Amino acid sequence: MTTNEQALLLHEEWNGKIETTSKCKVTTREDLALAYTPGVAEPCKVIANDKEAAYKYTIKSNTVAVVSDGSAVLGLGNIGPYAAMPVMEGKAVLFKEFGNVNAFPLCLDTQDTEEIIKTVVNIAPAFGGINLEDISAPRCFEIEERLNELLDIPVFHDDQHGTAIVVLAGIINALKVTKKTKEDCQIVVNGAGSAGIAITRLLLTYGFKHIVMCDKVGILSKNTDCLNWMQQKMMECTNLSNKTGSLADALVGADIFIGVSAPNIVTKEMVSSMNSESILFAMANPVPEIMPDLAKEAGAKVVGTGRSDFPNQVNNVIAFPGIFKGALEGRASKITDEMKLAAAISIASLVDEKDLNENNILPWPFNPLVAEVVSEAVKSHI
Amino acid sequence: MTTNEQALLLHEEWNGKIETTSKCKVTTREDLALAYTPGVAEPCKVIANDKEAAYKYTIKSNTVAVVSDGSAVLGLGNIGPYAAMPVMEGKAVLFKEFGNVNAFPLCLDTQDTEEIIKTVVNIAPAFGGINLEDISAPRCFEIEERLNELLDIPVFHDDQHGTAIVVLAGIINALKVTKKTKEDCQIVVNGAGSAGIAITRLLLTYGFKHIVMCDKVGILSKNTDCLNWMQQKMMECTNLSNKTGSLADALVGADIFIGVSAPNIVTKEMVSSMNSESILFAMANPVPEIMPDLAKEAGAKVVGTGRSDFPNQVNNVIAFPGIFKGALEGRASKITDEMKLAAAISIASLVDEKDLNENNILPWPFNPLVAEVVSEAVKSHI
Repeated sequence: MTTNEQALLLHEEWNGKIETTSKCKVTTREDLALAYTPGVAEPCKVIANDKEAAYKYTIKSNTVAVVSDGSAVLGLGNIGPYAAMPVMEGKAVLFKEFGNVNAFPLCLDTQDTEEIIKTVVNIAPAFGGINLEDISAPRCFEIEERLNELLDIPVFHDDQHGTAIVVLAGIINALKVTKKTKEDCQIVVNGAGSAGIAITRLLLTYGFKHIVMCDKVGILSKNTDCLNWMQQKMMECTNLSNKTGSLADALVGADIFIGVSAPNIVTKEMVSSMNSESILFAMANPVPEIMPDLAKEAGAKVVGTGRSDFPNQVNNVIAFPGIFKGALEGRASKITDEMKLAAAISIASLVDEKDLNENNILPWPFNPLVAEVVSEAVKSHI
Repeated sequence: MTTNEQALLLHEEWNGKIETTSKCKVTTREDLALAYTPGVAEPCKVIANDKEAAYKYTIKSNTVAVVSDGSAVLGLGNIGPYAAMPVMEGKAVLFKEFGNVNAFPLCLDTQDTEEIIKTVVNIAPAFGGINLEDISAPRCFEIEERLNELLDIPVFHDDQHGTAIVVLAGIINALKVTKKTKEDCQIVVNGAGSAGIAITRLLLTYGFKHIVMCDKVGILSKNTDCLNWMQQKMMECTNLSNKTGSLADALVGADIFIGVSAPNIVTKEMVSSMNSESILFAMANPVPEIMPDLAKEAGAKVVGTGRSDFPNQVNNVIAFPGIFKGALEGRASKITDEMKLAAAISIASLVDEKDLNENNILPWPFNPLVAEVVSEAVKSHI
């Protein structure tokens, strides 16, 4: 049986990957009087007088909503809220298993930006944080920004920032392996959707100077037609020499390639045209922009992918459970750039110097230390 | 320590009465590939082609949203969504413990009818049913009705129907004890909010003919000022002789009093003015409309209250877990009147004839048979 066949059977067996479990037994009238009426009125009254007490007496202290509209699910595209549920349930599983954070999946039956924003604001009281997931660009940028303005709990679009944090962590370690410095690196990011843009923004915040973004049309510049508002904004801080041309043109002399795009679109020739000791993150899933062996043959030093069967898997699960764990424990109202950088640096630090090499730049996701270390890094920047 | 003090301490210790738990272990890359990417894409694709498959592969099959806007919480009134959370978490606990139904509390940061409706429609894909709770009248009627029209999953306002079902169950057995017949009974319902109106409607559906509703102003009739639209509608099927006067006037010659109103407003004299072998459900909480011992001294035969320290406790937990269990298992799209009647009759049947007496008209809520029997009754009417 293939993995896919087995996954389908298991999903039928699970019939929902999470459940809600009671922390309190209710087997006697006395139990009922404590967990429900009349006793429950006591915490209600305290919270009615002081909203902050919700963190003391309710699930808000350690519960995240995993919110999607099903508009950009995995590589499947706009499959809608019902079909997105297995992914969001999976995410809720990972929150609990990796970060001990309770998470509930909410797939919204609307793809209207204003309605999504209103709905999330309306359901926020139960939650200590909102994890946005699989919402298509450029709506995801506005939804996240506006929600962060409207709410006093952190709102975090994982496709953007989770990916960006793990990529930055990988690159920090790849620089050590290749002895490159961030100020001098020429970077090409291929794919100008949510992940590509968030990666670019975080790399700039970290101190990289020279980034060119590409998309299906080739190099994005101020002159490119049909840029969305966020891509236009990115032209103020990327491609400062206003290059034009194809992805192949962009890669000539580049040090780092970051792909969140499509299978097999990078050739060996393109890799050969890059600087020596080049670093490639070819994260198209399941088939990367170039297979690691080909990239290596063409001269790449470090190659990461989104896949677990190759070295250097860029996996968001390294970041998001610890990020929310730290944000909830520290009662952060936002996930700031400082926290994202601290998270990336802490992830990079989890690979011991003695173990660090071109095939081992990221920590093992199942190492229970990961969420601990990331959450401490986040907390120390609240 | 009082129960209330202990309840407050316990709520702090619980720090949220429910948690989300994973049904699948994720400790290896293989686990991750099955529960999350790439394997999770398989059930997603199946559901994208057939929405119904959501019941096969996701939590929708056995998960209820407990939704409130915090506008009418217990006896505390409009305390808002944050302060309502402990009650809704408690409700979620009872769903799981009594009915093995997963439930998640959502307290909405809006009290606007249209926004509540829109929000619930938007979050519906994750859920197999919606339990509305503690939403003030008359908004609760419109919200429930409109949601039932808009959604293909059952929407059930428990303050209305849960209470009505348990009251009807109690009355069915009280009639046996007092040898009264439904066609001849004169009933007074005091309190014309959500519970009072729902009780009246269900009693009429069951076959009672003569019901007079009262409120703070006394008997409600077509001439009463300031009736809301639902109370006006109730004047078409209650108080058919268009009586006027006080609650005391209404009770003269009545067989049954049902109070969902205020403490100590029924006197011994009023009870004495009722027919012999009278039945009183004095459900104001925590202090009933009349204390059971006083009612008995004045001639009442059967007295029920909302309290666990007196006989005949009218407790919604006897009804709602089994109702949703049955509705979910049978994939009902609505909770119909037939199901409500069947649920009430099944609850009444749980008290064996040999055990039935004026102090034992309702089943023990902790009897695990209750949810089973109620759910089977509901399922057999889908």
